[in-house]
Amino acid sequence: MQAGRAQTFRAVSNSFGQSFRITTWGESHGPAVGVVVDGCPARLPLTAAEIQADLDRRRPGQSEITTPRQEADQVEILSGVFEGLTTGVPISLLVRNGDQRPGAYDEMREKYRPSHADYTYQAKYGHRDHRGGGRSSARETIGRVAAGAIAKKILHLAGQVEIRAYVTHIHDIAAPAVVNFPSLSEVEANAVRCPDAAVAAQMIERIKQARSEGDSVGGIIECRVRHVPVGLGEPVFDRLEADLAKAMLSLPATKGFEIGSGFAGTLLKGSQHNDAFVAQGGGIHTATNNSGGVQGGISNGEEIVFRTAFKPTATILQTQKTVDVHGAGTELLARGRHDPCVLPRAVVIVEAMTALVLVDHWMRQAAQNRTFKF
Amino acid sequence: MQAGRAQTFRAVSNSFGQSFRITTWGESHGPAVGVVVDGCPARLPLTAAEIQADLDRRRPGQSEITTPRQEADQVEILSGVFEGLTTGVPISLLVRNGDQRPGAYDEMREKYRPSHADYTYQAKYGHRDHRGGGRSSARETIGRVAAGAIAKKILHLAGQVEIRAYVTHIHDIAAPAVVNFPSLSEVEANAVRCPDAAVAAQMIERIKQARSEGDSVGGIIECRVRHVPVGLGEPVFDRLEADLAKAMLSLPATKGFEIGSGFAGTLLKGSQHNDAFVAQGGGIHTATNNSGGVQGGISNGEEIVFRTAFKPTATILQTQKTVDVHGAGTELLARGRHDPCVLPRAVVIVEAMTALVLVDHWMRQAAQNRTFKF
Amino acid sequence: MQAGRAQTFRAVSNSFGQSFRITTWGESHGPAVGVVVDGCPARLPLTAAEIQADLDRRRPGQSEITTPRQEADQVEILSGVFEGLTTGVPISLLVRNGDQRPGAYDEMREKYRPSHADYTYQAKYGHRDHRGGGRSSARETIGRVAAGAIAKKILHLAGQVEIRAYVTHIHDIAAPAVVNFPSLSEVEANAVRCPDAAVAAQMIERIKQARSEGDSVGGIIECRVRHVPVGLGEPVFDRLEADLAKAMLSLPATKGFEIGSGFAGTLLKGSQHNDAFVAQGGGIHTATNNSGGVQGGISNGEEIVFRTAFKPTATILQTQKTVDVHGAGTELLARGRHDPCVLPRAVVIVEAMTALVLVDHWMRQAAQNRTFKF
Amino acid sequence: MQAGRAQTFRAVSNSFGQSFRITTWGESHGPAVGVVVDGCPARLPLTAAEIQADLDRRRPGQSEITTPRQEADQVEILSGVFEGLTTGVPISLLVRNGDQRPGAYDEMREKYRPSHADYTYQAKYGHRDHRGGGRSSARETIGRVAAGAIAKKILHLAGQVEIRAYVTHIHDIAAPAVVNFPSLSEVEANAVRCPDAAVAAQMIERIKQARSEGDSVGGIIECRVRHVPVGLGEPVFDRLEADLAKAMLSLPATKGFEIGSGFAGTLLKGSQHNDAFVAQGGGIHTATNNSGGVQGGISNGEEIVFRTAFKPTATILQTQKTVDVHGAGTELLARGRHDPCVLPRAVVIVEAMTALVLVDHWMRQAAQNRTFKF
Repeated sequence: MQAGRAQTFRAVSNSFGQSFRITTWGESHGPAVGVVVDGCPARLPLTAAEIQADLDRRRPGQSEITTPRQEADQVEILSGVFEGLTTGVPISLLVRNGDQRPGAYDEMREKYRPSHADYTYQAKYGHRDHRGGGRSSARETIGRVAAGAIAKKILHLAGQVEIRAYVTHIHDIAAPAVVNFPSLSEVEANAVRCPDAAVAAQMIERIKQARSEGDSVGGIIECRVRHVPVGLGEPVFDRLEADLAKAMLSLPATKGFEIGSGFAGTLLKGSQHNDAFVAQGGGIHTATNNSGGVQGGISNGEEIVFRTAFKPTATILQTQKTVDVHGAGTELLARGRHDPCVLPRAVVIVEAMTALVLVDHWMRQAAQNRTFKF
Repeated sequence: MQAGRAQTFRAVSNSFGQSFRITTWGESHGPAVGVVVDGCPARLPLTAAEIQADLDRRRPGQSEITTPRQEADQVEILSGVFEGLTTGVPISLLVRNGDQRPGAYDEMREKYRPSHADYTYQAKYGHRDHRGGGRSSARETIGRVAAGAIAKKILHLAGQVEIRAYVTHIHDIAAPAVVNFPSLSEVEANAVRCPDAAVAAQMIERIKQARSEGDSVGGIIECRVRHVPVGLGEPVFDRLEADLAKAMLSLPATKGFEIGSGFAGTLLKGSQHNDAFVAQGGGIHTATNNSGGVQGGISNGEEIVFRTAFKPTATILQTQKTVDVHGAGTELLARGRHDPCVLPRAVVIVEAMTALVLVDHWMRQAAQNRTFKF
Repeated sequence: MQAGRAQTFRAVSNSFGQSFRITTWGESHGPAVGVVVDGCPARLPLTAAEIQADLDRRRPGQSEITTPRQEADQVEILSGVFEGLTTGVPISLLVRNGDQRPGAYDEMREKYRPSHADYTYQAKYGHRDHRGGGRSSARETIGRVAAGAIAKKILHLAGQVEIRAYVTHIHDIAAPAVVNFPSLSEVEANAVRCPDAAVAAQMIERIKQARSEGDSVGGIIECRVRHVPVGLGEPVFDRLEADLAKAMLSLPATKGFEIGSGFAGTLLKGSQHNDAFVAQGGGIHTATNNSGGVQGGISNGEEIVFRTAFKPTATILQTQKTVDVHGAGTELLARGRHDPCVLPRAVVIVEAMTALVLVDHWMRQAAQNRTFKF
Repeated sequence: MQAGRAQTFRAVSNSFGQSFRITTWGESHGPAVGVVVDGCPARLPLTAAEIQADLDRRRPGQSEITTPRQEADQVEILSGVFEGLTTGVPISLLVRNGDQRPGAYDEMREKYRPSHADYTYQAKYGHRDHRGGGRSSARETIGRVAAGAIAKKILHLAGQVEIRAYVTHIHDIAAPAVVNFPSLSEVEANAVRCPDAAVAAQMIERIKQARSEGDSVGGIIECRVRHVPVGLGEPVFDRLEADLAKAMLSLPATKGFEIGSGFAGTLLKGSQHNDAFVAQGGGIHTATNNSGGVQGGISNGEEIVFRTAFKPTATILQTQKTVDVHGAGTELLARGRHDPCVLPRAVVIVEAMTALVLVDHWMRQAAQNRTFKF
C-alpha cells in the first residue's frame, strides 16, 4: 500500500448497530445526506417534526458561535412510516444540501489541510470529493442525529430513559462538577450548552476570542443517562462501555473517552474505588458510582456517566505549512466557513450516538427475554 | 427487565473482528479456555511455541507482584495448521485450566462482590458460574493473547509492524514521557513492565505496599505502534481509533481511552494542535503527532500512540459492605488469589487487542487493493 | 407469539453482502424506493445512465405481457460519485414512485390476499402498509437491480465476467437446452426473454392466455456466468452456491434453486456425475460440468450454471376464498394492476443478485490476495 | 488470481447465524473437531448425553451402508454449562478424532480427486491438509450436529416444535408421498432413514449394489417442521426460505433446494397454486400448503416442508482421469473409506441446520416482542 497512488480501496463501514442499525450516506457538497434505519420496531408513532427538533439543535448557523453556513436541514421521511406509525421496515430519511460554496474549496483539491482527513482519504481511496471535506465532513452526522431522535423516542417510551449531554470544558475553562441531572432547558439555555450559566458565558467569550484570532478551541462533553434498565451490554466484546467508546471515537474530532471514574480513577486505591452495594427501595444500588453505571460490561441500573474529549477544530484561518497532492511542501490559508469550536453542536450528536447504542443493546438482550422459558 | 429474576438472556458477543475474527470461550474454573481464529491467511508459518511466548507474559504466578495462582497455560493447536503452515481454515486453540480452588469462592455464590460483574451477570443471565468470576474472569483473555500472537506475527511479516505496550502510571507514580520507541527487552526488564527502571522500582514497591494493606492499585498503559501503513481504518463508523477504543474498553477493569493528544489536547488551540505536513524522504509525514497516527479515522503512517486507564483491582482483602443474591445487606471478606494490580499482566493483552484490530483493518482495506483496476 | 395481535416486531434484514453491501428501502406506494451501496471500490467510472439501462429492463409497462402500471423509474445518484468516478464512500440511489392508485387496494386493508405476504406481515409487525403489498412488493427489487448494475460493471472491468439469465420454462412450455452462452441481444429479442425465438412465441401466448383467464403462470429462469476466476466462495458456510441459493430465495415468488446437475443429478451414479479434470490451455478444466462451476463451495473456473423456480403470480383476477384481519371467512376479488407472469421482468433481477454475490465474494477472497506474503 | 499459485487467501466464513451463532472448526485428520455456540439462552438444562444422541445418528460405522471408519465421536462440553444449566456464555464442544489412516491419502497430496474440493482449496488457499479432504470433509458437520441438538431442544421446550427429516429418493427409487408427519422411530427404523419400510429395503439394496460396483448414489431428503409459530423470517433478504436454502446448500454434496410446491409448482396456474386462507380453531390457516409454510419470507404457521438434493458421493473406487497439482494429466484410483451414499447420515445434519435456522430467527424476531410497547 503506497500513499498517494491512485488505487481502489473502499469501506463497508457506514453502518452502526446490530439489532437497530443505521446506515448513513452523503457528502458535504453532494446533492443530499441521509440515513436508513433498519430494525426500528413497528407501531412507533413518528413524525418528521420530532426528528427535526434534534436536527435543529445541530443545524449550522444556529448561534453566533457556530459556522455561518445556513442550512435549513429539513428532513423528509421516504419510507417505513404509514399513517403515522412505523411499520417495522426500513426508515429512509433525506436532507437536501443547500448553502454550498464549492468554489471556496478549490485550493483543497491540491493541498492537504493539516489534521484533516484530506491526505488519508486521498491515500486510501485514490479519489475524493474535496469540497468541504466530502464524506469526512461533520455534515455526515446529520443522519446520526436523525436516527438518534428515533432511538431517543423509543427509549423514552420503553422506560423513561433520559439522555443528557452537555459541555463541561472549553479550552481551559472548566465547569464545576454537575451534581444533579440537568434538565434539557438548562442545557439549551445558552449557546455553548453548558448547564452552568456563569461558566457558559466565559466559554462563549473564549470561543469568540479564538475565532477573532483565526484560531479554534476544543473541550469535553459529559453525557449522563438515567433510568437505564439493569442488564444492557453483551460481554465479552460488546460490553456497553466498549460500544459507547466506539460510538464516541467514531465522531469527528474526538480524541478520548472515559466512563465513571475514568483516568482520575487510577489515582484511587481499590478500597476507595469499589462501589459498595446497598439494598434500597426493593432494588440493588451502589453507594457510589465510580463504575459509571456499568459493571462487567453490563448496566447495573445506576446512572451511566461518561466524557468525551474533542480536539480544537482543525480548520483555522491562519497560514499553515503543509504539502500538496504531489508531495511538495507548500502553504495553505484556509477559507470556507467553519465552527471555531465544535462542541456546542456536538452535544446533540453525542446524545444521538448514546441513544443508538442503548436501543441496540436493549434489543439484543431482549432477543431472549421471556422468549424461552426453561 | 427486573434485576434478580431468573430469566433467559444471552449474548452473541464473543467474537471480535470482521475479516480476522476471533471467538473466545471458557470460564475461570471450567475445564478449559480457548479461542477460534477465523480468517487467518494461509501459508503463515506457525508453531505453538510462538503463541506460548505471549501466553507466558500474561501467565499468573510469573512474578512476586502477580497472583500466586499457578497455571502453566500450555496452548494446544487443534486445527488450522498443517505441516507447520496455516491452511486458511479456522485455528482452534485450547488451554486447560489447572490450579483451581473453587471452594475459595463458595461465599460468592450468595454475595455480590463490589465492583465485580457478579450482580450484573446474575441479573442478566439468571444463572452464573460464580467460581472465580466465571466468564467475567480475566482468564478469558487467554484466548485474546493467543490469537493476538498470531496477529502480531502477521503484522511483523507483512510490514515490520511493531507494537509495544508498557506501563506509564501505577497509582500516583508516573513515569516520565517515553521518548524513544522502547525495545521489548526494556519493557520486560522488570516485573511491572515500565521501561524506566528507576520508576519501575517505585511502582513495584507501591504494588507490594497495596497488597500488604489488602488493597489494590490501578494505572495507565501506553501503547505505540510503528511502521503502520497509511490507509488503515474504515470511516465513518469503523475508524481505526474507534475500533481501538472498543478493543481497549472491552478489556476487564478499563475505564478510559485516549489517542494522540487525548484529553490534554483540549487545552491546546487549533494552531498549536494541528500537525503540519512535511515532505520527507519521498513520503508525507507530520512535524508533530497530536493526531496519534490517525486522521479522519485512517492511519497516516505516523506512530499510533494511545493510552488506556485501568481501575484498581476490585478484589481486595478487606471487609466490604454489599448485598446478597436475595437483596439483603451483608458483609464480604474476599478470599481467593488475585493480582493487587492488573497492569503488569495486562501489557501483553493490550498488545494482543491492538494487533487484532490492525490485522483486521489491514485485511478490510486490502479487500480491494489491486483487486479491481479501473 | 400470537398471530394477529398488534405487537412490535421488526427486522434488521434489509442488507445483503459482507464486503459489497446493499441496503434497500421503500414501499410500493410510498414516496420513493432506493438503495445504499456500501463497499463499492473507488475510481469506478459510473453514470446514472448505466444504472438506468438495467432499471429499464425491469420497468413495469415495458411490453404487452407485463403490468400496465406506468413508471419511468428514473434513478438519481445522491452520493458516492464525484466527477464521474466513485469515491469509495456509500452510493445512495433514489427512484421516486409515480403511477400510484392506492385506492385500488382499499379492500386489502381488511382482507388477506391468498399466497401474498399480507397475513404474515400483519402477524409479524402488527401494522403494515397494505397498498400494493407495501414493502413486500416486488417494487423493492428496484434497489437490487440498481446496485446490481454497478456490480456487473465491476465484474466486467475486473475480469470480463459475463452474467446471462434467461427464461427456460413458462408453465409447461420448456425451451430446449441452451447450449451456447446466449448473447444479451438474443435474450432481449423477445418480450419473455427466452433465447429460443420459436419457444418464446409460445410462451408469450401462454402468458396472454393466462391473463385473459384472469389467471397467472410461473416458470424457471436459468442463469449462467462465464469468465469466473477460480477461488470465489468461502467455506464452510458461505459457499458460493449457498450464497447464490440465498440470493435467489430472497426474491419474491421463488420456490426452488438448483446448481449444475441439480435435482436431476440425483439420478446419476458417481461414475457418471463426477467431472473429470483435464489439463487444457495451460489451465485446469473439467470435461463435464455437473458441478455447475463450483466445487467444495469454491468456483473452479468453469461456467456457473443454476436455475430458479418462480411460482405463478399470486394476484389473479378471480374470486378467491380468504379471511379478513379479524379472522372471519370472506371472499376477495383482486383489483390492482399486476403481471400475469413475473419471469420476463425477473431476468434482470436474477442477474443483479448474481452479480452482487460474485462481487461480494471477489472482495472477500481478495482481502488477502497478495496482501500478506509468507 | 491464478490457480495453483501459492498465495495466502482465507475465509471468515465458519460461523452461521446472527442471534444464535455457531462457529465450527477442525479437519478430518487433525487432532479434533468442534464448535462454539454463541447466543444460547441461559438456564437451558443441557447434558453431553443429549448432544451425543444426535452425534450417534451421524456417526460413521453405524450400519452396513455407511463408511466402515470407526469413530466414537464422544462429545465433551468445555464451557457454558454450570451445574447442569447453560449460563448464557459460549458453549464449547469438542470431539477428538480417532480412527485415522492418513497414509491412505498420500496419493491425494499430488492428485486432485474429481468433483472433490481438492483443486479449489489448493487454488484458493495455496496450502491444504489433503488427508481425508481436510476441512472440506463432511467430518466438519459434527459441530453442526452437536449445535443442532441444542437448537432442537430449545425449539422443543419453547413451543413443541418438531423437525423431521427423512430420505424420499435414492438414485431412481422414490418413496410415495409421505402424508403424515413421520415419527422419529419410523425414520430410524431402517438404515437408510426412509419412513416407508418397503421402499427403504429397495434403497438399501441399491446402495449396496453401488458399493459393490465401486460406485455411489445420491438422492433427496425431505424435511418437515410442525408447530412453527407465525412470524419467523426477516424480509427482505433474510426470508426464512432464503436462510433455509443457504443452510442446505452449505452442506457438502448438495445441488438443489425447493420449498413447498418447488419446481413442480411451476406447472400450476395461480388459481391452482394459491393457498386459500381459512378460519379454523380460532386461528388462520391455509386449505393447501403450496407455500410450504412460508409466505413473503415469514412463517405462516403451517408445516414447513422442503427438499434437498444430494449428488452421488464423489469418492468412487474406480480409476478416474484427473490432473495432478502440477497440472499434468494422470489417473487416480481412490482409496480411503467412504460412504457409497451420504443420505442416511445426512438426515440428522439436515435437521440440525434447520433447527439452527429456526432458533436464530426465533431470537431475531423476539428482539422486540413485548420489549417495546407503543
